[in-house]
Amino acid sequence: MGNPKAAMIVIGDEILSGRTRDANMHHLAGELTKMGIDLCEARFVSDDQGAIVGAVRAMSDTYDHIFTSGGIGPTHDDITADCVAEAFGRSIDVRDDARALLEAHWTARGVEINEARLRMARIPAGARLIDNPVSIAPGFTIENVHVMAGVPNVFEAMVASVLPQLTGGKPLLSQSLRIERGEGEIAGPLAALAERYPELSIGSYPFQRDGIYGANIVVRGSDGAQVDAAMAELSGLFPA
Amino acid sequence: MGNPKAAMIVIGDEILSGRTRDANMHHLAGELTKMGIDLCEARFVSDDQGAIVGAVRAMSDTYDHIFTSGGIGPTHDDITADCVAEAFGRSIDVRDDARALLEAHWTARGVEINEARLRMARIPAGARLIDNPVSIAPGFTIENVHVMAGVPNVFEAMVASVLPQLTGGKPLLSQSLRIERGEGEIAGPLAALAERYPELSIGSYPFQRDGIYGANIVVRGSDGAQVDAAMAELSGLFPA
Repeated sequence: MGNPKAAMIVIGDEILSGRTRDANMHHLAGELTKMGIDLCEARFVSDDQGAIVGAVRAMSDTYDHIFTSGGIGPTHDDITADCVAEAFGRSIDVRDDARALLEAHWTARGVEINEARLRMARIPAGARLIDNPVSIAPGFTIENVHVMAGVPNVFEAMVASVLPQLTGGKPLLSQSLRIERGEGEIAGPLAALAERYPELSIGSYPFQRDGIYGANIVVRGSDGAQVDAAMAELSGLFPA
Repeated sequence: MGNPKAAMIVIGDEILSGRTRDANMHHLAGELTKMGIDLCEARFVSDDQGAIVGAVRAMSDTYDHIFTSGGIGPTHDDITADCVAEAFGRSIDVRDDARALLEAHWTARGVEINEARLRMARIPAGARLIDNPVSIAPGFTIENVHVMAGVPNVFEAMVASVLPQLTGGKPLLSQSLRIERGEGEIAGPLAALAERYPELSIGSYPFQRDGIYGANIVVRGSDGAQVDAAMAELSGLFPA
């Protein structure tokens, strides 16, 4: 019944070492929320075979969809495609359709085709390609795992290719109210409100800046009338 | 031997729904790298008891240190402290030392002490408090789990309180070289370089902007002389 459930695996030493700040999870989260797929969990793992294979196996059993980001380029540290193939016990090799896409792209640009570049045409047996309008080298979907690039503009283009093929659910609607009072003062009435609306998720996100403090209260749910009703009660409890 | 291994658990529906972009993982990653503690994994989970308890149990068995972010405020959606207590089979209640800190802070500001505010003094039995110079309400350490606030400036202050108490390892050193050539051209010689330096981690991070493309090659390791040597070879392979 409920919405489809999704998880993400972000792959890359550069993020866990603090060199790069990931942007892909935030992008995917927003896109999934719009179409009613619930992002339930995200795991960031290093460029390590055991870590990637383990995460794919554990999460593909638990969720309806898994989205991965990173590790599908031509260099030696790009091991995601091989790891996903291993997780599902599939063979992996350069595939003709992927090679044809890349050859057409490179030939038109006078770029030499070498072994490293052909690594990007390695696709696990039985996978479906994911279109990459930015830099051509495709992602792929195997079982319920969608394998995409880590470079943000390529990741975003692949997300735009994949999501329209998936069945969504009820989009999560949200409204928020900024209350300039301490959370300790808001908390009691807010908890009572949350109990009166068990189907809604009501969150409190405190802020404190330039001597002004308070909290943004966010009311989320898939039933617009309920969200409206809870927001009206909230505004009544904490008039501006 | 090797460096201590750490993992992070980021707790909060607001991040998984795409409303808020997490900043704490990137901050912690950088701080841990500086002191030679390896951040091996991060999991983002929702404000859900089963998800939080499960992640704490699974990860505290695997890693030397776990750092959590989020869910320790006064409102009904702040369930992290109770979940961590449950994960370790500990009782949890308002504790005198935590209450004293908060009462002194509020009394000085003429703020009424109520049940919601006292929720922030709930500490699992046997935990050690983590100092919070920003907003007083403490975090805590229980076993190998360090439980901290989600608000970024409070999280950062708590990280600064905790990390000096931990034993670090060899700081990870890194150097990078920007190469304005396609990754497909770089990949072959780079893989050979990586094979010659098995103790180093050599990553390639492509970019493409304003018609200029290439990759930043990052060489990481704890042995500065090896990093220097690999960088010298790299510069020789790809002169500017």
